[in-house]
Amino acid sequence: MKIIDIKEESIKLNLSLSNSMFSFKEMTTSIVKVDIDDGKSIQTGFAFNSTGRYACGAQMRNRFIPRLLSASESDLVDDAGDIDTKKALDVMLVGEKPGGDMERSVPIGTIETALWDAISKSKKLPLYKYLSQKFPEYNSTNRMFCYVGGGYYDVGKTINDLKDEIKKNFENGYRLMKIKIGGAPIKEDIRRVEAAIEAAGSADNIALDANGGLKKDNILTYAKELKDFGLSWFEEPTHPSNFSSYKEFISNYEGSVAGGENLYSTQDYLNLIKYGGFRENKDLLQIDIPQSYGISYFNEALIELKKNNWNVNKIMPHGGNQMSLHVACGFGLSMCEAYPNVFGVFSGYDDEYQLDDGYIDLSDRPGIGFEGQNELYRLFKDIK
Amino acid sequence: MKIIDIKEESIKLNLSLSNSMFSFKEMTTSIVKVDIDDGKSIQTGFAFNSTGRYACGAQMRNRFIPRLLSASESDLVDDAGDIDTKKALDVMLVGEKPGGDMERSVPIGTIETALWDAISKSKKLPLYKYLSQKFPEYNSTNRMFCYVGGGYYDVGKTINDLKDEIKKNFENGYRLMKIKIGGAPIKEDIRRVEAAIEAAGSADNIALDANGGLKKDNILTYAKELKDFGLSWFEEPTHPSNFSSYKEFISNYEGSVAGGENLYSTQDYLNLIKYGGFRENKDLLQIDIPQSYGISYFNEALIELKKNNWNVNKIMPHGGNQMSLHVACGFGLSMCEAYPNVFGVFSGYDDEYQLDDGYIDLSDRPGIGFEGQNELYRLFKDIK
Repeated sequence: MKIIDIKEESIKLNLSLSNSMFSFKEMTTSIVKVDIDDGKSIQTGFAFNSTGRYACGAQMRNRFIPRLLSASESDLVDDAGDIDTKKALDVMLVGEKPGGDMERSVPIGTIETALWDAISKSKKLPLYKYLSQKFPEYNSTNRMFCYVGGGYYDVGKTINDLKDEIKKNFENGYRLMKIKIGGAPIKEDIRRVEAAIEAAGSADNIALDANGGLKKDNILTYAKELKDFGLSWFEEPTHPSNFSSYKEFISNYEGSVAGGENLYSTQDYLNLIKYGGFRENKDLLQIDIPQSYGISYFNEALIELKKNNWNVNKIMPHGGNQMSLHVACGFGLSMCEAYPNVFGVFSGYDDEYQLDDGYIDLSDRPGIGFEGQNELYRLFKDIK
Repeated sequence: MKIIDIKEESIKLNLSLSNSMFSFKEMTTSIVKVDIDDGKSIQTGFAFNSTGRYACGAQMRNRFIPRLLSASESDLVDDAGDIDTKKALDVMLVGEKPGGDMERSVPIGTIETALWDAISKSKKLPLYKYLSQKFPEYNSTNRMFCYVGGGYYDVGKTINDLKDEIKKNFENGYRLMKIKIGGAPIKEDIRRVEAAIEAAGSADNIALDANGGLKKDNILTYAKELKDFGLSWFEEPTHPSNFSSYKEFISNYEGSVAGGENLYSTQDYLNLIKYGGFRENKDLLQIDIPQSYGISYFNEALIELKKNNWNVNKIMPHGGNQMSLHVACGFGLSMCEAYPNVFGVFSGYDDEYQLDDGYIDLSDRPGIGFEGQNELYRLFKDIK
């Protein structure tokens, strides 16, 4: 197997929504196409750089694509002659200074994920099944519980609109929904939570996401006001690396807390768990895999996390997309996020997928299966 | 005052040197030119994105320059009508998700530093003097102790070459030199340190920099083997955010330790001090100001650091250049790094500056004074 070509393109998302911290108005994303030659045929893999971080094509064009394309075949393949994504990661990391990961972890992870798509297509396997062969130590599955990441603040959006949004998702088969918090005055936010619980039928069908936006003068009020609601989890109450604030929030909130989507290295995940006071039987680590160096890096992170008593059932991927869904199934993670209709063509999964009481069954389409997402696939196909 | 135009260009450094972690072979940097209209004349400010991080022109062109150029004048000026760099920072940060700072802190900090150059030129003041007016709470100075960051590993470089490099720097008036460590077998590294001490005349004239490259299986050996040498400090023994490893190293090494150049936010500096076990009377925090959102952000970081008993005399800037030198003088930091002849035209200070027993006296040239660095200024002038 060898890499023949890698191309990227930047796409504007055109969204009006926002969370407690920022608006998606200018948001862009990079889409990537990788061609590999497996000796019999050319296989094409795709990926995009998940959500919430801007397009990163310049880094790809200037550093990571040239490094891969100029590497010798032996630098990139395993003993069986297949492309070894860990070796590809190492090749992309040559000439990079430690720390400050995000500037490179997003472009590298996106390219690496596209490689997995191409390789699993060459093996005629859906990605989750290929992952289960590569990493047999995990309990892979073809069926994953998916929750909705939604409930954004939006221009003119009322509490009734929020309830309608939740009801619609539950009618469509979802059984758990996460809504934004911290972007309105606390009294209004609590009314939003009460309305959400009413629409969802039960507090444990609702989770909250503050996107790191609570402040010194209100964070503990949020913790105390919401601790007795019985919500599923409270996500990113504070700045992604304000570990002492995480710890203080957790001791006041007591319920399940989640975080990690804005950390981009194993060292930072370990710091969050250790210094943030995360409890291994209660809290959730959220990793955005294509934004964090990709799947082979994630596997290495899992090994380090396990040494610290952190297991796959306390990890869920950030970024509701077909890539995260396959990784969640391949490694048997706790659950997967979904963004129905939130991020335009980058929302959601295969167009044919049906919810079954909160669960999605993956098809046997080879690779990540972007070919089943018609509008997104049209963008991928046209990358030149 | 208003911003009229901002342009950037990417420059390749063409270097063969390396440290324990990576080679500078492919390294690039972004140079920036900002034109402001102060009502009487057009002033032009310059900056570059320091060293060790790649050019970031795409982020500037796609996000930060358009945000600044489309901002209204009132979004950018203070009560006196001068450009307020803190407001410029806030304008550049609109639409940015918290965490993962380096992808934006380098381009933002470089633009912000160029703004300071232009504004202080408009005031007909050298930057350090303008800083002393804006931040009178610090003990500004026009005279700064500068040490040499050097002693890199390089193809064919021998221990005698290292000694010659040190001797040459001391002949030129420097009185303290930092050499790389961790990139050779430990026995050879210790021979390098012994040779360096011999060349420098005394152990406290030498500091070490491992660039985060020591490993689990050798870091404590380095700590124990080198603790009794009496060296000036030991820099980045471990990964930039491996705080527990910093703490363990410090308790074994006992002498002065430094770190922080690969952290890019106030929160991360605070984490290093707190969890890394930094001792306020002994250890050094190193911040690369143009790579970390620039000077107004640095001032805000100082306020937070002071609340944690960390003072300017325990901070020194990473990146030996004319920008860091002015900031070190303006805020009265402990000392400043110099890179004579290491990073091509991006090395060093004003061509006319003379060392005086380790110290440099700043001239009264307005702004940062890149106009006194002929080769670099030629690059800046030609930005189109």
